[in-house]
Amino acid sequence: MVVSGARPTGRQHLGNYHGALKNWVRLQGDYRCFFFVADWHALTTDYARHEPIADNSVEMVLDWLAVGLDPDRSTIFQQSAVPEHAELALLLGMLTPVPWLERNPTYKEQREQLTDRDLSTFGFLGYPVLQAADILMYKAEVVPVGIDQAPHIEFTREIARRFNGLYRPVFPEPATLLTETPKIIGTDGRKMSKSYGNAIYLTDQPAEIHGRLARMVTDPRRVRRHDPGDPNDCPAYLSFHRLYCTAEELRYQEEGCRTAGIGCLECKEITIKHVQAELEPIRERRARLGPEDARAVLEAGNARARAVAAETMADVRAAMGLV
Amino acid sequence: MVVSGARPTGRQHLGNYHGALKNWVRLQGDYRCFFFVADWHALTTDYARHEPIADNSVEMVLDWLAVGLDPDRSTIFQQSAVPEHAELALLLGMLTPVPWLERNPTYKEQREQLTDRDLSTFGFLGYPVLQAADILMYKAEVVPVGIDQAPHIEFTREIARRFNGLYRPVFPEPATLLTETPKIIGTDGRKMSKSYGNAIYLTDQPAEIHGRLARMVTDPRRVRRHDPGDPNDCPAYLSFHRLYCTAEELRYQEEGCRTAGIGCLECKEITIKHVQAELEPIRERRARLGPEDARAVLEAGNARARAVAAETMADVRAAMGLV
Repeated sequence: MVVSGARPTGRQHLGNYHGALKNWVRLQGDYRCFFFVADWHALTTDYARHEPIADNSVEMVLDWLAVGLDPDRSTIFQQSAVPEHAELALLLGMLTPVPWLERNPTYKEQREQLTDRDLSTFGFLGYPVLQAADILMYKAEVVPVGIDQAPHIEFTREIARRFNGLYRPVFPEPATLLTETPKIIGTDGRKMSKSYGNAIYLTDQPAEIHGRLARMVTDPRRVRRHDPGDPNDCPAYLSFHRLYCTAEELRYQEEGCRTAGIGCLECKEITIKHVQAELEPIRERRARLGPEDARAVLEAGNARARAVAAETMADVRAAMGLV
Repeated sequence: MVVSGARPTGRQHLGNYHGALKNWVRLQGDYRCFFFVADWHALTTDYARHEPIADNSVEMVLDWLAVGLDPDRSTIFQQSAVPEHAELALLLGMLTPVPWLERNPTYKEQREQLTDRDLSTFGFLGYPVLQAADILMYKAEVVPVGIDQAPHIEFTREIARRFNGLYRPVFPEPATLLTETPKIIGTDGRKMSKSYGNAIYLTDQPAEIHGRLARMVTDPRRVRRHDPGDPNDCPAYLSFHRLYCTAEELRYQEEGCRTAGIGCLECKEITIKHVQAELEPIRERRARLGPEDARAVLEAGNARARAVAAETMADVRAAMGLV
């Protein structure tokens, strides 16, 4: 059993794809999987943003389906449609020492970095508690995360242990499945992110993809066609070429860059071809899907998730003496 | 509309009766009332206690019925049976600045006073958020509280304002109905409390009530029958005589105390008679009730509460863009 979720950011880009979705598609072959739209999590950092969470959820799920998440094999649901997550978070919060939360490295880090928004809230402080509830609800054995999220899974294990010790064993302690995901750099050289406007979306049209990748920053030393460069200073190389190209193509690109044997655009064309080939079937599947498909998938998934959640909560309430 | 709740402490004593229940019975004549068993609140301070919350809830509700709470007029329900309270608490927590909670006087006070238990938890810190959810869920206009709880209602108003301003007006700001309730002193001179073993329970037998009140501490100066005392130093006077006796009786008791004209037992007999008269019909009604009555009342009340809660949450989710 695997549980993983993503905030409803709307249309998915290559950062989302390589950072999570590709891995999810792989996992559904090996595990019973629960993938969820973490719409409440979006509120922990963005309660005041008025982003259209519901619309973004639908767009995101359509992309999930397009990349190959299979609702017959995996349960795809919406966190806020399973209110048991809130109940479990409330109950786990009763046993969570505030210092555990204050010590959370992500908490400290994000408060330092995301200075453009209000992170002094009770909801943001309690974000790991909600995440623990999301995971423990389905008695997940494995949680696939990047290294930055590993402390949260450790926290989830600690809370599970504490609950099991105080009351009775209800929750297995989930293992961390450390997932090495390539860091996708956006067209401006920064991390690919919706909010930077530097993303390539799964549903972008071929001409758009070509245009954006063609304009992507490269090694700044290659001002003119005949200036040589260093692939290790080229965002396009570090992010895209390495990810998409064959070993042979890479050797050609590296050599061409260092000797100014090829121009940056020529170099990129090799990669763009691969990107287009990967996105074409996704875009095709996506074109056959409409919002009603996402809603139907969520409706069925929500019902399946709720059935599991109801069982878990019956256990939890009994263990805590509430019934 | 009035909302008020009490933690499931089991059988109710005279402190509970004069501190809340008597007032609730009065209120149900003037308002549509929601009275609830605050079983989740019990976990904010006592998550590790393993008190039989479910049994205590039933015992408490039986006493509520015995004192005259009328399930046909008031909605009597159990907090944990309306999971929407957890959902609303989670959502309100997203907009609650942690400093608002840390500044809460009750938070500071209880952390200093209740040193026998772990109050460093996220649940205890967030207790006012859960209380705000309890109140706002029913769009309460009025919340009857003692002066010590007044800051929590102020907090509830602040959260309602913040929500209404950020999204759209959903919640009325509830007014505080400051309720002066007599402080009931237990038989040992300390505040009457289940945990001190100094309580007179509504369901105690007459002989038991007599015995406990007869042994209750009085002015320590009255060591022997002929030592005069001062009513202002007599816990029995300050708590019970003043509450139960007529003006004429009080004058007789005060004079008798100061002049050693009457003994403490004689003085108490006057009061005990009133206490017995008050408790007799309660005990009789209680004797005709069994656990199944409490369960039936809660079941009906839970359904009524859930219907209101479902409406409120539909508004809340829409206002926050979750649906």
